[in-house]
Amino acid sequence: MPVLNETHHSDLRSWVSSANDADTDFPIQNLPFAAFRRKGSDEAFRGGVAIGDQVLDLAAVDGVFSGDAAVGVAACAQPTLNHFMSLGSTIWSALRLALSRALREGAAEQGALESCLVAQSDVEYSLPCNIGDYTDFYTSVFHATRIGSLFRPDNPLLPNYKWVPIGYHGRSSSIDVSGQTFRRPQGQTKAPDAESPSLNACQRLDYELEVGIYIGKGNELGEPVALDEADQHVFGYCLFNDWSARDIQAWEYQPLGPFLAKNFASTVSPWIVTNEALLPYRREFKRDAQDPQPLPYLASAKNSEEGALDIKLEVLLQTQQMREQGEAAAQLSNSNFVYSYWTVAQMVAHHTVNGCNLRPGDFFGSGTQSGPEHEQGGSLLELSRGGKEAISLPNGEQRTFLEDGDTVVMRGYCQQQGSVRIGFGEVASTVLPAKG
Amino acid sequence: MPVLNETHHSDLRSWVSSANDADTDFPIQNLPFAAFRRKGSDEAFRGGVAIGDQVLDLAAVDGVFSGDAAVGVAACAQPTLNHFMSLGSTIWSALRLALSRALREGAAEQGALESCLVAQSDVEYSLPCNIGDYTDFYTSVFHATRIGSLFRPDNPLLPNYKWVPIGYHGRSSSIDVSGQTFRRPQGQTKAPDAESPSLNACQRLDYELEVGIYIGKGNELGEPVALDEADQHVFGYCLFNDWSARDIQAWEYQPLGPFLAKNFASTVSPWIVTNEALLPYRREFKRDAQDPQPLPYLASAKNSEEGALDIKLEVLLQTQQMREQGEAAAQLSNSNFVYSYWTVAQMVAHHTVNGCNLRPGDFFGSGTQSGPEHEQGGSLLELSRGGKEAISLPNGEQRTFLEDGDTVVMRGYCQQQGSVRIGFGEVASTVLPAKG
Repeated sequence: MPVLNETHHSDLRSWVSSANDADTDFPIQNLPFAAFRRKGSDEAFRGGVAIGDQVLDLAAVDGVFSGDAAVGVAACAQPTLNHFMSLGSTIWSALRLALSRALREGAAEQGALESCLVAQSDVEYSLPCNIGDYTDFYTSVFHATRIGSLFRPDNPLLPNYKWVPIGYHGRSSSIDVSGQTFRRPQGQTKAPDAESPSLNACQRLDYELEVGIYIGKGNELGEPVALDEADQHVFGYCLFNDWSARDIQAWEYQPLGPFLAKNFASTVSPWIVTNEALLPYRREFKRDAQDPQPLPYLASAKNSEEGALDIKLEVLLQTQQMREQGEAAAQLSNSNFVYSYWTVAQMVAHHTVNGCNLRPGDFFGSGTQSGPEHEQGGSLLELSRGGKEAISLPNGEQRTFLEDGDTVVMRGYCQQQGSVRIGFGEVASTVLPAKG
Repeated sequence: MPVLNETHHSDLRSWVSSANDADTDFPIQNLPFAAFRRKGSDEAFRGGVAIGDQVLDLAAVDGVFSGDAAVGVAACAQPTLNHFMSLGSTIWSALRLALSRALREGAAEQGALESCLVAQSDVEYSLPCNIGDYTDFYTSVFHATRIGSLFRPDNPLLPNYKWVPIGYHGRSSSIDVSGQTFRRPQGQTKAPDAESPSLNACQRLDYELEVGIYIGKGNELGEPVALDEADQHVFGYCLFNDWSARDIQAWEYQPLGPFLAKNFASTVSPWIVTNEALLPYRREFKRDAQDPQPLPYLASAKNSEEGALDIKLEVLLQTQQMREQGEAAAQLSNSNFVYSYWTVAQMVAHHTVNGCNLRPGDFFGSGTQSGPEHEQGGSLLELSRGGKEAISLPNGEQRTFLEDGDTVVMRGYCQQQGSVRIGFGEVASTVLPAKG
């Protein structure tokens, strides 16, 4: 199992008192990174670390740290974290350790760092890095089977699924950070009984509950990343909503895959929870006995022993009516990343086995993380059984797919029994009416 | 038909004498852009314009131009052309006109510009811009039908093909400029009669003859580009080899499209021939009478009258043996971009109809540009009828797919009868053995 260090110790407490609250997403054991500035200002975006309800402004931390941690802090002062992410795990770990020590109760650095705190309620976020390439995987066998049964009733799970970590390239330009709003897309659709297609506003607009993965250190073209080296290339994780237009997808996706059904918007949560912070939540990665064992380049003892990640996930919906009536978002489903059929290390090893180069800041979507039960579907397409069964909301409204004004919220956190809770914050974004 | 201007006049001659040679790719009517530096130097890359066998170093041109042309020149001094490409057609045209006038025989600027010339034989190129997103289309109906008949003999051309400009997202990180070498990729393949897949070096390595399209001015998320506005967003064109691993593709591509079969390498020619330079080679865009007319967002009088581009294309192969024996590359096939089933304006309008945002420097591949005849296939998969018929080369060698040491060369040019010839230069790249 992974080697933990002093930064993971559940007894640690911070002099930032909100970081010691039982329900905070950001205790001192978390220390996730984002790019931020004061809300509504024209300040430059720069790197920050979440601690309780505060952001530690890393561009303001000067002269407090030394050695590798200082190298890391200097890199985080840039408007994007790409350079910091490229520096590799020695620098990442050094900065994490220095931050953990400096933010602990009784730390000598308290005086110097107090003036570097900004309340999270006073900041706005940008994408934490320039995302060069975005790849979307398809790692929930439960999602793949349910979706497959809607698109191909006679052949839901294709023969390659249990051998190949299926993925495809997505669009970087339309990825934005939580708070994103976007117009309902229009596109070509064709009803099964229609003679020809037509251009319409999407009628089957959906979300997808995904985990996002940021690549830190890249690899050179032609140099695959071995499975057990993959973790050295993964900087961290976020929540990811990969909006989908199901009716556009059904008509366009053959033979080259989804295109306009996906590239109109995708939304990430602002904070990157580091790979190191998540080490205590690694789990054994198991395959059903009747499933094929992965090919050798996708199999190792380390991957089996600690490849899975126990991240609890949930999707909530706040309709326009709920918002107007002051009602909180209602939960639609919950799931867990531990159900993923492929580990993140397997995604990295597979993506690079042909020599494909990953660059710092590249992004993977995990694919919709549906659990084994119908109620754990990570999309409305699953929950509404292809739009055939409406879902009833607590206020009496119903949904098969999303309506204008709907805000979809995703949350995630890790918690072991009796242990500290590491949260991801949230990703929330809202559907606007189609262009008139 | 498009409005031509003085820069297109076929009688223009340059004081750079090699630009007046009948067989140059770069007469004064062309004026394509690249990013270059002196070969083997550690100079910064910067923008240049090809004229005959010379490059005009745009970072060295200072104070020669004024107004919009000076704005353009200043932008071209940067290491990538993204900023210049973002400035839009008024700036692009102003610089083209100023360059055309200053490079003409008798121009007063000759003295100032002579010292800004560098021989093309003395330079090396980088990618002309940072490619944010790369989209590959599939616009040759002849290619789609032939490939479809290999993957789906009973259903070669899918019902959406004649309605939807099919495209999918590709990988930016592995795109490089002519001269690229890359290792033969390894990947999962499965023979039809094998019980399970295995990891092997690709046995069916192929090229794809494509036209590359660079986006200049972008569009905002949520704001589609109308068909007749599309040209304002297209900066220019190049040659593009989208290397493909056919055996990997066959096993991985369902249901989300090609992934590792494509993302190990893609190669562009260094020069971007501008949209404006190509105006004289626009042609009527016709559909067969029995084909459906495009939906209204993909149809206009302008698109019908001048949507097609008459770019002659050819693929050549130089094997290692040919190279060792001093033999020139042998032509494998030729084709023409005029056969494309969709125009570039239709690609832009379709790509953005859902609100997807394009950014300056984004890149489209046209898809393999095969002509109507078997001999005009733009890939070995077509020419060898799925690997069943070997192609004989002039030196007695045979090929079904590419072998290690093979260099694939693509060339393209435009020429009207009795008119000036506008060339694209070439894209050449070489297959190295798989990683041992």
